[in-house]
Amino acid sequence: MTKNKVGTQTLNFFTTPVIKSWASIVGPMEGQGPLQDYFDLILENNLDEGDKSWESTEQKLMQHSMEIALEKVGLQPANLDFYFAGDLLNQIISANFTARFLGVPFLGLYGACSTLAEGLALSSILLDGGYADRVGVSASSHHDTAERQLRYPTELGVQRQMTAQWTVTGGGSYVVESQGEGITITAATIGRIIDRGATNSNDMGTAMAPAAYDTIIANLKDLGRKITDYDLIITGDLGILGLSVLKKLLEQDGYPTHNVSDCGVLIYRADQDTHSGGSGCGCSAVVLNYLLQKMLEGKYRRIFLIGTGALLSPTSAFQGETIPCIGHGVVLEYNS
Amino acid sequence: MTKNKVGTQTLNFFTTPVIKSWASIVGPMEGQGPLQDYFDLILENNLDEGDKSWESTEQKLMQHSMEIALEKVGLQPANLDFYFAGDLLNQIISANFTARFLGVPFLGLYGACSTLAEGLALSSILLDGGYADRVGVSASSHHDTAERQLRYPTELGVQRQMTAQWTVTGGGSYVVESQGEGITITAATIGRIIDRGATNSNDMGTAMAPAAYDTIIANLKDLGRKITDYDLIITGDLGILGLSVLKKLLEQDGYPTHNVSDCGVLIYRADQDTHSGGSGCGCSAVVLNYLLQKMLEGKYRRIFLIGTGALLSPTSAFQGETIPCIGHGVVLEYNS
Repeated sequence: MTKNKVGTQTLNFFTTPVIKSWASIVGPMEGQGPLQDYFDLILENNLDEGDKSWESTEQKLMQHSMEIALEKVGLQPANLDFYFAGDLLNQIISANFTARFLGVPFLGLYGACSTLAEGLALSSILLDGGYADRVGVSASSHHDTAERQLRYPTELGVQRQMTAQWTVTGGGSYVVESQGEGITITAATIGRIIDRGATNSNDMGTAMAPAAYDTIIANLKDLGRKITDYDLIITGDLGILGLSVLKKLLEQDGYPTHNVSDCGVLIYRADQDTHSGGSGCGCSAVVLNYLLQKMLEGKYRRIFLIGTGALLSPTSAFQGETIPCIGHGVVLEYNS
Repeated sequence: MTKNKVGTQTLNFFTTPVIKSWASIVGPMEGQGPLQDYFDLILENNLDEGDKSWESTEQKLMQHSMEIALEKVGLQPANLDFYFAGDLLNQIISANFTARFLGVPFLGLYGACSTLAEGLALSSILLDGGYADRVGVSASSHHDTAERQLRYPTELGVQRQMTAQWTVTGGGSYVVESQGEGITITAATIGRIIDRGATNSNDMGTAMAPAAYDTIIANLKDLGRKITDYDLIITGDLGILGLSVLKKLLEQDGYPTHNVSDCGVLIYRADQDTHSGGSGCGCSAVVLNYLLQKMLEGKYRRIFLIGTGALLSPTSAFQGETIPCIGHGVVLEYNS
């Protein structure tokens, strides 16, 4: 029966769903970073004009990125058969309010920073399986909503540890269709929870690296591929420290790592003082905009994107629990 | 391409995935209710022996219900191709820790009380589409973890309003397979966000009723069915007040409602003083155990279960936002 599953974790999409359109909106800090030319809109302030709360701005980031993605291909929200979305906020309110605006059948996800990849994987299943013609996927995060919910009230001005990542203010949206020309999603590798006992919520990259490693190895094994069969293996988001841990894990097992990178490393310049790089559902959601553009330009033909999530809560952390982590991967291909 | 989609929101599963096994564990209050004979295990205390936190007990409810469901059919966790789960807690930690125990590819969901139905719908897509042979689905809630996170610290002893529902302490798990004998999932209707402007988080049933109504009407329209084509249309969980609102909405439009009920109404006796009945992801997750048993006994041949979620957060409520609601439906059939 499982004609579309290979190995233990990987699904093949033989009808090759196509990423038809995408868009991204980011905050001022991301707009000063090296990928600034690849975002559709850059806010002047983390609290957008007219908004009374950071939460309201985050929700707009998600909603407007989907509106722009739809506009680019002349579509309306009602043209989406289904919508997958999630964010970091409790009860995924950015996603819920965006889905309210769109008015289409909605499936809410929680995967922390793996949300976008989880959404792209599930969308591909619906499209490849004949359950939909067109699916929307969004993810967002906002530095200030995340800080005050998951760490400390921003007003406290607590000094950040050097191992910490900076939550990206950004929303990214994707319109995926069942067929057509363009960048295709050819496979997905669904992650398992990997928990090596890390408890430091100020160093999530190190906690997540083994989960990214697990999903990369599963993908290579399931598809019978070498790491060099990919032009780029990119995690989202281990940050600088986590990426170095992932590379060490791969190198220990004899894998080359020259083509391994991370969205959280790409999004900020070293002198932007983010410490270990970017994180948050919005990070891979906006950096993928850049990667897809580079695919169209011929820089990459086949990418493996692994969304990595640290699935802890402040409550579980305070109760002494370790950090369960996951990595969901999607294979993107473009043959110009 | 969308050979499996009918109308705007409904998916047909022609290969008819089968609910192979199920199990439930509840707290003492649910164990004193009218459905006590249909649960696998009843805890003596909301804080289970040996646990240091209610969160730990909730996670055990979910995990053990899946262990029992697997044991009933002689399976191990590793026999699951994929696992869908979610709960009410921030960052869905009950689901994350259960997925860590199971060790299989995991897709985290957030749909509030619609989580179980969302999981059953997505599982059916994976099974029907040839992406999996066997999928696990769980949902849980716990009265005390929910109260202190979403309402008031339990120790405050705040008087509950008469319109409020009582969050069920319970975990329910399901093993769904791509084929075989038994109760089948023949269709799913994915909900849209419906928000009629309700803001009272102590009356979520009234807020959610229009979302349940919307999904019921979409299902009937998409499948060309009458309400009486179902032996039972059951929401989870509108509670006593919400169910009366749903019935009024249906009756206003000329639909009969003698076969319309609600999981939150069934789970407690009137004299258990829960006010408007049960709620929480765990409510429909454990009541469905009872419903499936009644299907096997021949009481119902075709049920439409609509999981209803109130997708607000305390933050969005404090910021004056209205309550976005959703209803995800699955059609269950059994022909003995």
